[in-house]
Amino acid sequence: METWQAINTVRVVRKFSDEPITDEHLDRILNAGRRTGSSKNDQHWAFIVCRDREHLRELAAVGDYARHLAGATVAIALVTPNATGHYNNSVMWDCGRAAQNMVLAAWELGIGSVPATVYDHALTSRLLGLPDDRRCDFLLSFGYPADPAKLTAPNRAGGRVPLSEVVHEERW
Amino acid sequence: METWQAINTVRVVRKFSDEPITDEHLDRILNAGRRTGSSKNDQHWAFIVCRDREHLRELAAVGDYARHLAGATVAIALVTPNATGHYNNSVMWDCGRAAQNMVLAAWELGIGSVPATVYDHALTSRLLGLPDDRRCDFLLSFGYPADPAKLTAPNRAGGRVPLSEVVHEERW
Repeated sequence: METWQAINTVRVVRKFSDEPITDEHLDRILNAGRRTGSSKNDQHWAFIVCRDREHLRELAAVGDYARHLAGATVAIALVTPNATGHYNNSVMWDCGRAAQNMVLAAWELGIGSVPATVYDHALTSRLLGLPDDRRCDFLLSFGYPADPAKLTAPNRAGGRVPLSEVVHEERW
Repeated sequence: METWQAINTVRVVRKFSDEPITDEHLDRILNAGRRTGSSKNDQHWAFIVCRDREHLRELAAVGDYARHLAGATVAIALVTPNATGHYNNSVMWDCGRAAQNMVLAAWELGIGSVPATVYDHALTSRLLGLPDDRRCDFLLSFGYPADPAKLTAPNRAGGRVPLSEVVHEERW
């Protein structure tokens, strides 16, 4: 799949089929995250792969909109240093870049995904066994769409603000 | 270019040729940012396109490693709400996702890029004419590489930590 096509057609998938993700494809997705550029090439991330169904069901409680994790074929938790201030912004930005690489690499393979935002950090840290100097703000659910039509559905009209409203020239 | 190829081969480009970026290609890059998924579809970003050479030279002073902006064919400043706490993390993560979409869309067109991190927020806000409730933490420089070999150079050995060191199974 051409890169622009992946960027332009990727959509959120919240319900997944029972089709397993092969190790080869999972490695492709993880490598997409690993290959991502980061500030000073710090690569300040770790990826926790969660596939155990009971574990996924527990993780579905980490946030108000995280229930999709219970039905994920695989979830990947993005773990970062417990940063603050400007360094934290840099870590979050880099993590977002890694996430997008994983989302696009998966989409090219016909695998859908959706992010979950962590609200309950104590629960998340416990479920993922994180050391005190690490935290997890986001997880991604991956899987083949329960509805395969999701892969080729046209973009929803009005789903994004038009370019003219988000772009400025030289100054705000 | 296949999506995985773009993800796997993209590298940082800091020096750019004089070849202009067409409006069509710039729109492609901006649309790649605009199309990005965001938390609750908030699309909490604006993109300021900077092409005036004198303006770019001024922007090169926003951070210690931002000098590449002076030679960019086009710079895109990512502007976000002045957020704090968890919302800030979400905004930074979403912005990183938009940045990666732009970087990959550009790479498919043979256009290189490199991010600049803002250190001097007061200067940046003044140069970009930002309102008080907005800020800019990152800009991206874009342009055709001064050295076209950059587009096809093999990945540097040891440039990234191996998968076995960043991936955990179920728990840390």
